[in-house]
Amino acid sequence: MRAWSETELLDTFFRDLGARRADVTLGIGDDAALVRTTPGTELVMTTDALVEGEHFLPGADARSLGHRALAINLSDIAAMGAMPSWALLALTLPRVDDTWLRGFADGFGALARAQHVALVGGNLSLGPLTVTVQLTGEVPVGTALRRDGARAGDALYVSGTLGDARAALALQRRQLMAAPPEAAFLRQRAEFPDARLELGSALRGVASACIDISDGLHADLGRVLQASACGAVIDVDSLPLSPALRAVCGADAWQQALAGGEDYELCFTVPAASVPAVARISTRTHTLLARIGSIRQEPGIELRKDDAVIQFSALGYDHFRR
Amino acid sequence: MRAWSETELLDTFFRDLGARRADVTLGIGDDAALVRTTPGTELVMTTDALVEGEHFLPGADARSLGHRALAINLSDIAAMGAMPSWALLALTLPRVDDTWLRGFADGFGALARAQHVALVGGNLSLGPLTVTVQLTGEVPVGTALRRDGARAGDALYVSGTLGDARAALALQRRQLMAAPPEAAFLRQRAEFPDARLELGSALRGVASACIDISDGLHADLGRVLQASACGAVIDVDSLPLSPALRAVCGADAWQQALAGGEDYELCFTVPAASVPAVARISTRTHTLLARIGSIRQEPGIELRKDDAVIQFSALGYDHFRR
Repeated sequence: MRAWSETELLDTFFRDLGARRADVTLGIGDDAALVRTTPGTELVMTTDALVEGEHFLPGADARSLGHRALAINLSDIAAMGAMPSWALLALTLPRVDDTWLRGFADGFGALARAQHVALVGGNLSLGPLTVTVQLTGEVPVGTALRRDGARAGDALYVSGTLGDARAALALQRRQLMAAPPEAAFLRQRAEFPDARLELGSALRGVASACIDISDGLHADLGRVLQASACGAVIDVDSLPLSPALRAVCGADAWQQALAGGEDYELCFTVPAASVPAVARISTRTHTLLARIGSIRQEPGIELRKDDAVIQFSALGYDHFRR
Repeated sequence: MRAWSETELLDTFFRDLGARRADVTLGIGDDAALVRTTPGTELVMTTDALVEGEHFLPGADARSLGHRALAINLSDIAAMGAMPSWALLALTLPRVDDTWLRGFADGFGALARAQHVALVGGNLSLGPLTVTVQLTGEVPVGTALRRDGARAGDALYVSGTLGDARAALALQRRQLMAAPPEAAFLRQRAEFPDARLELGSALRGVASACIDISDGLHADLGRVLQASACGAVIDVDSLPLSPALRAVCGADAWQQALAGGEDYELCFTVPAASVPAVARISTRTHTLLARIGSIRQEPGIELRKDDAVIQFSALGYDHFRR
C-alpha cells in the first residue's frame, strides 16, 4: 500500500466533495476555512459522531456511514428550522483504504451536494474508526424552533413513519425476520436516513417546539416536555407505521415506533390556531404528518389505546445508560 | 459506578464551562446552538482531534488534554489572524470517570474562559478516547492571514521558541535526559501550549502569509511555500531556542527546532516595507519574534549555517506517513 500524506488524502478524496457555495471565501487547505454569513440570520451549530462498535458494527457499508454521519447533523439543523451551510469532518481511520474512502466520500458528498452543504475543512487521524461531523447553518434571527416552547393544549405531531430503523437493527441481529422487500425498505431507512430540512424550515412560525427523533419518540418527546415543563398524551393507534414495519412486527409495531430512534423524523407541537397550517405544510413539502396526541399540563407521557391508559417500559436509547 | 445519561454528563461537567458571551442566543441543551455574528466579519472555522495512542499516550493528564484539545484549534484561528468565539466538543470516552472528566473540564474551561470562547454544544459517546474540538472565530472581512501570500524578498519570522514540545516527548520516551527545572519547563510547553491569538490579530495587514507550527517548522513552512509557489532560506543559527532546549540538546538543538511540532508558535512572512512594524508588534504583544531567514523565488528550503549550505533530513510529523 502506498503511503499517503494527510494533504494528499484531503486533496484526493475530500477537496471538492461538497456543494460549491459562493459564501465560501476559502475552503480546505489553509489553517482554517473562511465563510461569509447572510445579514439578518443567526448561526445554528451542531456536532455529532459515529463510533465503530457503538453506533455501527465493524464492516458497516462505507457509503452509508458517509451519508449517515452528515444526515444526523442535518437532522439537528432541520429540527431548529434552519438550513445547513458549511460542514467540517474529523475522520479517524485505522488504516488508509482507498476503496473504503471512495465509498465514504461518495455517501457524504452526494448528500452534501443535494443539501447545498460545502465541506470547508477537516481533520484526518489514525486510530479507531470514528466519524465526527460539525455542521453550521443559518436561520432568520429569532425564528429558530426550540424545545422549550410546547404549551398545554398544543397538538402533537410526528413526520414520516417511526420504528423502521430500529426494526432494521433487529433484523440485522436476527431478532426479527422479514421478507426481502420489507427487509430492503427497512434497511434503506436505517442506512440512508433523510433529514427533514424542508419540513423544518416550513414549520418556522407554526410549530411551538420541535426536536428530531434520534433516540426514540418516547425519549426525545420527553426532552421537549422537560424543557417546556409540561406533559403529553399519545394515542398509540395514531402512530405512523410503515407497511414494512407492520408486516414484520405485527401488533407490537407501535412499541417499535415509540422506542425506535435513528429514523430522524421530526416531532413537533403546534398551537390550536396553527393546526390548519399543518395540513398545508404536509401537502407543500410532500411529507406525511401524523397528529399523535396533545400537550397537557400534567408532566409525563400518558399512552392511550382503545380509550384505556397503557404502560410502556422500553425506553429510548441513551449512550451512557444501557 | 452510577449510571449517567448524556444529558446529566453535559449538565454536570460541560454546561457552564466556557466563557459567557452575549452573542450566544442558545447554548448547550437543544438540537443545536444559536449564535449571532458581528456585522463586517467573516467566519473562520477549524476542527482538530486528539486520539489516544496517536496524539497522546494512555494515562495522559486529563487537564492537559482538555487544554491542548482547545489550544490546537485556537492556534489555527490565531494563524488566520482571527479571534475565537464558539466551540463544539465531541468527546468519546471508554468509560465515565468523574475525576478524569473534572480534570478535562478544568483544563478546557480555564483556557476557554481566558480566551473568551463559549462552549455552545457537544456530543458524548462511548468508545476509544478521542477528543474532537470544532472552533469558529471571526475576522474583519478580507483581512484574514492565509498561506498563499508569501513573495520573494519577504522576511521570514517565527514567534517564541521552537523544539520544546518535541524535546519534552523525547524526555518522556527517555531518549533524552534533563535536570528537573529544564524538564519541567519543556513539559509545561508540551502539555499546556499557548495559542498566539494576540500576535495573530496584530499581524493582520502586516504579514503576507502565516501558519501555525503544529507539525514542525520545516514541514509547516513547506506548506506556506507550496501554497505561495516560492522557496526560503533559513539561517539555522537564528532559530529561537529556549535555554532549556539548549541545555538538553546542546549542538543538536537547531535540528529539534526545525523538526519539532506542537509548539504552536506562528511562522509568518513580512514584506520588506513592513519589517519595522514587526518590532513594534513584538513589544506590544510581549512576544519574542525572531527573523530566521527570507523568502526567495527558487523552490525548496535552503538551510545555512556559518555561511555554508547544510542538509537536514528529519522531516516534520505527518499522521499518515511515519
